[in-house]
Amino acid sequence: MANVVSLEGKRKQPSLEPLLAYCADDMAQIDREILSRMRSPVALIPELANHLVGAGGKRLRPLLTVAAARLCGYRARDDRHIKLATCVEFIHSATLLHDDVVDVSNLRRGKPSANAVWGDKASVLVGDFLFTRSFELMVDVGSLEILAVLSRASSTIAEGEVLQLVSQRNMSTPEATYLEVIKAKTAKLFAAASEVGAMIAGAGGPERVALESYGMNLGIAFQLVDDALDYVGREANLGKMVGDDFREGKITLPVILAFLRGGKVEREFWKRTIEALEQREGDLVHAQTLIERHKTVSDTFERARHYGAMARDALGLFPDTTLKAALLEAVDFAIDRAY
Amino acid sequence: MANVVSLEGKRKQPSLEPLLAYCADDMAQIDREILSRMRSPVALIPELANHLVGAGGKRLRPLLTVAAARLCGYRARDDRHIKLATCVEFIHSATLLHDDVVDVSNLRRGKPSANAVWGDKASVLVGDFLFTRSFELMVDVGSLEILAVLSRASSTIAEGEVLQLVSQRNMSTPEATYLEVIKAKTAKLFAAASEVGAMIAGAGGPERVALESYGMNLGIAFQLVDDALDYVGREANLGKMVGDDFREGKITLPVILAFLRGGKVEREFWKRTIEALEQREGDLVHAQTLIERHKTVSDTFERARHYGAMARDALGLFPDTTLKAALLEAVDFAIDRAY
Repeated sequence: MANVVSLEGKRKQPSLEPLLAYCADDMAQIDREILSRMRSPVALIPELANHLVGAGGKRLRPLLTVAAARLCGYRARDDRHIKLATCVEFIHSATLLHDDVVDVSNLRRGKPSANAVWGDKASVLVGDFLFTRSFELMVDVGSLEILAVLSRASSTIAEGEVLQLVSQRNMSTPEATYLEVIKAKTAKLFAAASEVGAMIAGAGGPERVALESYGMNLGIAFQLVDDALDYVGREANLGKMVGDDFREGKITLPVILAFLRGGKVEREFWKRTIEALEQREGDLVHAQTLIERHKTVSDTFERARHYGAMARDALGLFPDTTLKAALLEAVDFAIDRAY
Repeated sequence: MANVVSLEGKRKQPSLEPLLAYCADDMAQIDREILSRMRSPVALIPELANHLVGAGGKRLRPLLTVAAARLCGYRARDDRHIKLATCVEFIHSATLLHDDVVDVSNLRRGKPSANAVWGDKASVLVGDFLFTRSFELMVDVGSLEILAVLSRASSTIAEGEVLQLVSQRNMSTPEATYLEVIKAKTAKLFAAASEVGAMIAGAGGPERVALESYGMNLGIAFQLVDDALDYVGREANLGKMVGDDFREGKITLPVILAFLRGGKVEREFWKRTIEALEQREGDLVHAQTLIERHKTVSDTFERARHYGAMARDALGLFPDTTLKAALLEAVDFAIDRAY
């Protein structure tokens, strides 16, 4: 399975580093803003939030916000772009806290998840806190137009999460529904993060639309790859357990395609393991074998490359700069992440 | 115990009816707005939300919003007051959905709670949806000032919920912390609901402050009475189980006072039942006996009357009208609810 990606290219491994380096000052400010905005007299809040938010992760979404702002010529006169980026990270973090409760996950970013340490109740409530704090930040930024974009995105995310929940363990979920879920729960925030970056820079309509499209397609590609890596990744790189999706009966593209392409016996296997969630020793390995047999992980990567290409093209109207090159490389990174 | 309230007055039972009657048109519009804003292509969302939101409850908070607006002379030129009121109800509903998950409650408004029917996961996610939908509504209303009040309130609620969680099952919780919790988790939304009503009507500072104070004090009184009724109420009126707070080890004023006023043996009882949550047959009845002995429910009502008086006085600067009388009666209703 490891050759799915290495087939892809002889070129050097794409990286997020150029983008992070370009935005280093902004990202350092975002770190400080995140810490300061998590403060609360209720000690559990910063403690739990810091476990998740403070402990890093790639901060890809806030990075998109400041990078999009810079690409549109934003010059910091104030810290509105920092507040916006923080707000985007808080929406994401709130979602993660609730996700881990819903998915009964125990590992996140290579550490025990917050719900595993503090329990589900605390995770639900601190997630709510981060959500509401993100809205306070938005209000601080003071643009109703931006508020509209981010509140719409938040609502779409929540809708996507519910759609995912009701599709869970249903092997008849069509690829279209899966795509709808990942657009809503993941890509929409990538899109909004990029779009509000353009907006804060006062960019015109075409730039705004371009960055929204860049974010949306990047987000779809990112989630497709995430779902592929769940079957073939290495835990050290994933920061979570390989096979988590399988164990939860989550319907992702590698499984949808394997089900559609498999015969009767194979479909029985998927129905037993995913729908009935009756899993035995060796089932994950067998699932990986079926996925390999039908090349559904490699086709998931193929789909991701399709969206990656759209993300790249979306930036066509921007002049070639170091920053644009870094944003293009971020697309390759999302797809060719080591596993 | 039943004489705690009947001692209070020979006057007729106070009611919410005059206020509901005065605002009947607005409330009917709010009903329609609620139903329309819960719509989603994901069927589970309106289904679950409708179970809670659609099935009534007193709609006290949105009622405060439209009543405050009317008291400040609001004349409907548009439906902004309706949107605001709906938004307030959605914030409240989202909180209830998450509360029931956190409290492991099975009954709400006399029906099985949403988490009991659809599970915790769905309740968490649909709660998130209602939360985000409420922010979309706020953005629709288009006032950054109002957004600031409601986003601050939401964040305070979340903070209060976490504070309540960390104080849970800790018998050393002082009355001051309890008060802080109920201000944050309950009264703040009553306050914001009333304040934004004044704001949408374009009221001046003093009216706005007065209505904020009315809501805050009404909310404190309301929650105090709720916590008292948990030990002495009748299920038919409560819409939940008597003794729920006791079974969850929730620290409320009747228990705090009974602990402080009790001797060594009684304190051991509270520590075993509330802190260690080791509860046996007959413990609830014994708890009720201790509470009766130390008159802590009647003192909780006494505290509620104190805040009720402040709520009434807050309206002093408004001329005497039918609406003002109805708002004053709502305070009495909050305190003298039948149990």
